Amino acid sequence: MSNTFQPPPGTRDFYPEAMAIRRFIEDTWRRVSIRHGFVEVDGPTFEYLDLYRVKSGDEIVSQLFHFESRADKEGKTEHFALRPEFTPTLARMVAVKANALPKPIKWFSIPRCYRAERQQKGRLKEFIQWNVDMLGGDTPEAKRQYDLESAALCLEALREFGLTSDDVKLLWNDRSVVEHLFSLGGVPSHRYAFAFYLLDRIAKLSPEQRNKLYDENEVSEREKTFFEKLAAGESPLDAAFWQNLGAGAEFESYTRTIATTQETIDRTLGAMGLAGFAKYDASIVRGLAYYTGFVFEVSDAQGENRAVAGGGRYDNLIEMFGGPSLPAVGFGMGDVVLEILLRERNKLPASALPRPAVFVVNALPDVTEATRLLAMLRESQWNPERTAILRPGLHAVTSSKSTKNIGKLIGEASGSGAKFAVILAPDEFSRGVAKLRDLATREEREVPIAEIVPQIHAALSR
Amino acid sequence: MSNTFQPPPGTRDFYPEAMAIRRFIEDTWRRVSIRHGFVEVDGPTFEYLDLYRVKSGDEIVSQLFHFESRADKEGKTEHFALRPEFTPTLARMVAVKANALPKPIKWFSIPRCYRAERQQKGRLKEFIQWNVDMLGGDTPEAKRQYDLESAALCLEALREFGLTSDDVKLLWNDRSVVEHLFSLGGVPSHRYAFAFYLLDRIAKLSPEQRNKLYDENEVSEREKTFFEKLAAGESPLDAAFWQNLGAGAEFESYTRTIATTQETIDRTLGAMGLAGFAKYDASIVRGLAYYTGFVFEVSDAQGENRAVAGGGRYDNLIEMFGGPSLPAVGFGMGDVVLEILLRERNKLPASALPRPAVFVVNALPDVTEATRLLAMLRESQWNPERTAILRPGLHAVTSSKSTKNIGKLIGEASGSGAKFAVILAPDEFSRGVAKLRDLATREEREVPIAEIVPQIHAALSR
Repeated sequence: MSNTFQPPPGTRDFYPEAMAIRRFIEDTWRRVSIRHGFVEVDGPTFEYLDLYRVKSGDEIVSQLFHFESRADKEGKTEHFALRPEFTPTLARMVAVKANALPKPIKWFSIPRCYRAERQQKGRLKEFIQWNVDMLGGDTPEAKRQYDLESAALCLEALREFGLTSDDVKLLWNDRSVVEHLFSLGGVPSHRYAFAFYLLDRIAKLSPEQRNKLYDENEVSEREKTFFEKLAAGESPLDAAFWQNLGAGAEFESYTRTIATTQETIDRTLGAMGLAGFAKYDASIVRGLAYYTGFVFEVSDAQGENRAVAGGGRYDNLIEMFGGPSLPAVGFGMGDVVLEILLRERNKLPASALPRPAVFVVNALPDVTEATRLLAMLRESQWNPERTAILRPGLHAVTSSKSTKNIGKLIGEASGSGAKFAVILAPDEFSRGVAKLRDLATREEREVPIAEIVPQIHAALSR
Repeated sequence: MSNTFQPPPGTRDFYPEAMAIRRFIEDTWRRVSIRHGFVEVDGPTFEYLDLYRVKSGDEIVSQLFHFESRADKEGKTEHFALRPEFTPTLARMVAVKANALPKPIKWFSIPRCYRAERQQKGRLKEFIQWNVDMLGGDTPEAKRQYDLESAALCLEALREFGLTSDDVKLLWNDRSVVEHLFSLGGVPSHRYAFAFYLLDRIAKLSPEQRNKLYDENEVSEREKTFFEKLAAGESPLDAAFWQNLGAGAEFESYTRTIATTQETIDRTLGAMGLAGFAKYDASIVRGLAYYTGFVFEVSDAQGENRAVAGGGRYDNLIEMFGGPSLPAVGFGMGDVVLEILLRERNKLPASALPRPAVFVVNALPDVTEATRLLAMLRESQWNPERTAILRPGLHAVTSSKSTKNIGKLIGEASGSGAKFAVILAPDEFSRGVAKLRDLATREEREVPIAEIVPQIHAALSR
């Protein structure tokens, strides 16, 4: 039991300061999502293990935490897995109610997700991921609009955190652009599936592994040259890329397509105040076998080029999960890399812990009056039909020390970060008043006991 | 794969309406906790399996979802379990930092928890539980104060949901009161551990099972009579209970203790505006082997007597988890029973979905102006040092339909629940203005385009 009293490797204990930062991140995601008209959803933390095979095949299983249910009366068990991502849950939930849900479906979620892999910087076994998905829109124009609304929401959240286009870039690509590139590179269309597979892994494959794949798939010499240039990181936007490939001036149609798409993106994001973020990048593939159109990744523009978020269009997924044909685009953003990045750029608040509005300094011999005052300060006032809060309850605290020394207690009040102190002292109390002290300006005035709560509310709303 | 596309039994899909209700409940718990000076914490969703044996022994394992990690290089695996409750995580987290944390420790958490048992009404395999714990306070007075602050917070949350003392009752007991009762019933002190064990299960045991336990533990005839009266639900507060038990007038000391404690509770809760909620109940035991003092349960006062929340004092737990001696009191409240109760009492909002502030009606031929306006409405304004939001971004939506028919679009705007509509129409736009419509009063006025955002902010803050 040597490890029993530690958190499992790759998980985190959220003590108050860390929890406040987590809520700061989650609340920002939620606020930005809601004001864009997205609504929140969630599903179970675990699903049937088979659900993850639908999209990702058997190879996903080794990356999952999975377990069996207790045996039923016949001794049968069922196999479940902790969710490694939210998309299969979303696809399942949309598929079963697709016809009843108003379109476009604009959903976000902030689930905790789990990966049974070794953790490294920026990757943990348990993490939180903001998911945004937009489903519906059949025309090419609607799809492009939804693509960009999705990308814009991603960027706007980062801007809300204080990041600029100097900090992060949105790198985009498109399945149709990649197919165009393949055709220029001499890849026959029956080999596109292989080419997507290769492109997705090309940076991680050794020359030997690549050669083996070329041989197995009977790839021509010209295709090999093309793939090897991509593997070497050469850009197909440079004329030099196309030397020895015989594409001649044709490659200009490729650069024109990119320039036109970039213009559309810039115009739309520009109108949203998000100019300068988006940039074409031929190396962004993000598993193009799964994505069907626009794909993007938001990366740290300095230093380590870490991916902060990624997503794209996946028009076939809802059908794969038993639903109707329904175009879709979405992205995910994890909390771990984001928090590292915000910390490095000094964009996290020094403390995100909530600060009290009022500190009650009790110098009366008994606690009853202080207890009564605290309860009144904390209580929300509802309108008679209880449909809305007329006056929210105030965050109010007091000392746990037994001292009646007003000076010491005011010191503690200042240290708590409270805006006001109410001082209950025998002299004033016998006259039916208490002192209300502004802890920033140190101004004090006497207030009738019955007036304390409304006067503090009034002062706070100024 | 027949079940693959369904949520696992005992778990829930949270579609937008259900998710909004979940957030309404969680946000209320959080708001009430924070304004009482509690700070939020969380831990991993899963812990080392052994952590749950520390408090609950081996019998807990069959009630857990547990799984192994992937094998390391030496082929070793580790055993983890999904948390069935938060207390072991809290005890572990407090134990390791107990000396560094300022006292009293006032923590709350809102974790998802998991039980591998068959679900029934009010019990699911996956649920959400509000946990509140207060640690520190060595004197009897401090302990009683923290006991009641904890109970009061529990009640205040229920009152914030709109429940009254007609809806729910706080039923209390105390380990010392139960020991007093045992002594009056003739139970020798070396048999208290057995008596607690028996009392905790007495309602579920058959007469045969009880007799077997009496024989095994060499219980006297007088003790048997005492336990059987408790098993039959007779109240030790009634003089009739003590006939045939020979406690004579001594039982009055027991009723006096209860009356005195009830007075203290009533005075303290009364000062907090929570009079009429608390009531002594001899049948509240809540596993008194674990609890060390005050215990309570908040129950539905009508109908089915379901427990909405429960907790008590557990002064030995932090030591069991490797920490110093640290008195503690806390409670838990699950979302499932609470939501059923709130629904039955008509205390849930008809819809908790966020309502838009503004609906942009776009009758211009192009979307660029509408896009620009939506972005400006949604953007938060920060002060120059980015330490506080000067003006929060507004929840702003538009139509996904291609129609330019202003009447139809205003109909859609009204249906969205938005407070205002901004109407972008060619005529007004050419004059640099747009119509701002109050969707409730149907009043319209022209506003210069550049003034729309500040004017809506001003109108909303009125």
